[in-house]
Amino acid sequence: MTAVKTATFRFSTIQRVRYAETDNMGVAYHANYLIWFEVGRTELIRQLGLAYKDLEFAGLFLPVIEVHCEYLKAVRYDDEVRIDSFLVEQKGLRLKIGYELYVGDTLSARGFTIHAFTDRSGRPTRPLKAFVEAVDAVLE
Amino acid sequence: MTAVKTATFRFSTIQRVRYAETDNMGVAYHANYLIWFEVGRTELIRQLGLAYKDLEFAGLFLPVIEVHCEYLKAVRYDDEVRIDSFLVEQKGLRLKIGYELYVGDTLSARGFTIHAFTDRSGRPTRPLKAFVEAVDAVLE
Amino acid sequence: MTAVKTATFRFSTIQRVRYAETDNMGVAYHANYLIWFEVGRTELIRQLGLAYKDLEFAGLFLPVIEVHCEYLKAVRYDDEVRIDSFLVEQKGLRLKIGYELYVGDTLSARGFTIHAFTDRSGRPTRPLKAFVEAVDAVLE
Amino acid sequence: MTAVKTATFRFSTIQRVRYAETDNMGVAYHANYLIWFEVGRTELIRQLGLAYKDLEFAGLFLPVIEVHCEYLKAVRYDDEVRIDSFLVEQKGLRLKIGYELYVGDTLSARGFTIHAFTDRSGRPTRPLKAFVEAVDAVLE
Repeated sequence: MTAVKTATFRFSTIQRVRYAETDNMGVAYHANYLIWFEVGRTELIRQLGLAYKDLEFAGLFLPVIEVHCEYLKAVRYDDEVRIDSFLVEQKGLRLKIGYELYVGDTLSARGFTIHAFTDRSGRPTRPLKAFVEAVDAVLE
Repeated sequence: MTAVKTATFRFSTIQRVRYAETDNMGVAYHANYLIWFEVGRTELIRQLGLAYKDLEFAGLFLPVIEVHCEYLKAVRYDDEVRIDSFLVEQKGLRLKIGYELYVGDTLSARGFTIHAFTDRSGRPTRPLKAFVEAVDAVLE
Repeated sequence: MTAVKTATFRFSTIQRVRYAETDNMGVAYHANYLIWFEVGRTELIRQLGLAYKDLEFAGLFLPVIEVHCEYLKAVRYDDEVRIDSFLVEQKGLRLKIGYELYVGDTLSARGFTIHAFTDRSGRPTRPLKAFVEAVDAVLE
Repeated sequence: MTAVKTATFRFSTIQRVRYAETDNMGVAYHANYLIWFEVGRTELIRQLGLAYKDLEFAGLFLPVIEVHCEYLKAVRYDDEVRIDSFLVEQKGLRLKIGYELYVGDTLSARGFTIHAFTDRSGRPTRPLKAFVEAVDAVLE
């Protein structure tokens, strides 16, 4: 897993397509793209100087409340998929993160996730100050 | 797995949440909802008098080219999730299917998938006449 | 999901193979068999008069500490897999459960899981009296 | 994904535990260990100078016909799991591969898979000469 800063607030992570992720059509099954989004998001947050597991340990959870994905070109077993993740916006208690998946120079898929800020029991909560400051720093 | 016709072109399927589908937050992981959409879609197509596997055998594939999901209320291990699937529209070489997930009377999530019609190698193709007629019959 | 008592302490559950569970070879990916074991086990425990989620709620966890599976015949998308689950033995703080998977009359796979009894934090613990009695009743 | 030669015929690959791979107990779900075995195996075969996808392209498939895993210590979200894979033996038309999973210096799990050599349709076949020679070179 390699994380490369490709723009002010955009980060790239590489994941090889696992055999487990392929399907009967001989390509990666579409739901797995959301898992790759998760891998990209985890590394994006780590690059902000915060590990998501530490946010949870401190009582801040970021459940996905909306997801969208467009599939442009199939990816296959053993392909190296580059996951570009970027902060789109934080508005009130909502965080939007964007994703682009590439194999070589080809854009294979793009999408976004929207996250709420909640406590462990799922109740809306204010994000940690450290998190807001880290996000602000890259969004400005 | 029970399929019940609940409206002119809407069908319901029940799936219990598997332990494998839960995550660290103690709820079902969000990518699994797309898999439940797939289970609902398979049963919806079967209710049209066509098994999706037979479509593939006849050379018609329906890859997902776009997906959207809103998560309204978390679902948990062993919950019985009712997957309501319905044909939204067929326009040219695109098919749109909608989904609503319920636990009891509570709407837990809703979304849609858009599908292309392709042959085995992923090239756009016309849908089978039998498929178009079956879809037309319920959309009109 | 239908559970049928097929022998003194053996129960059957049917699961259709999901597209998500297939792979590049056009068959179900081998790791998914362990998930089907889990589905069978959940229904087996329910037939004992106990829901596994209630055991966890009461503080008893049954993590898998060993698993074995032999794959005899590939299963494919949309196949109806019958999962036969049966209690093999309980010795001290270990529970062994066996599984046979059938498509039609053909034995497709067989295996077992061994479980520890632990509390929420993973420390070994004595199983609940209600659980031991329910297991004893069918093993004798 | 880093592959390091740690012994004559043993190779290590690192995978971070994904959120998708965790479950309700707050640890990695046991079936995912088989997927990590697959990732380790893919890299092990690549280190032999062969990519598994090229073997399949040449008509040689290695379906799993038996799997075993012992779980010694739970692994958690974001842990870096080192997957050590090693060739155990090739006998006739059977190949046995072993695995050890470590988090830091702690052995978390160990297991093996046994593979058949088949053609695309699942019929037993002789392995490619290049494959046999590559395996022989490290097993001797």
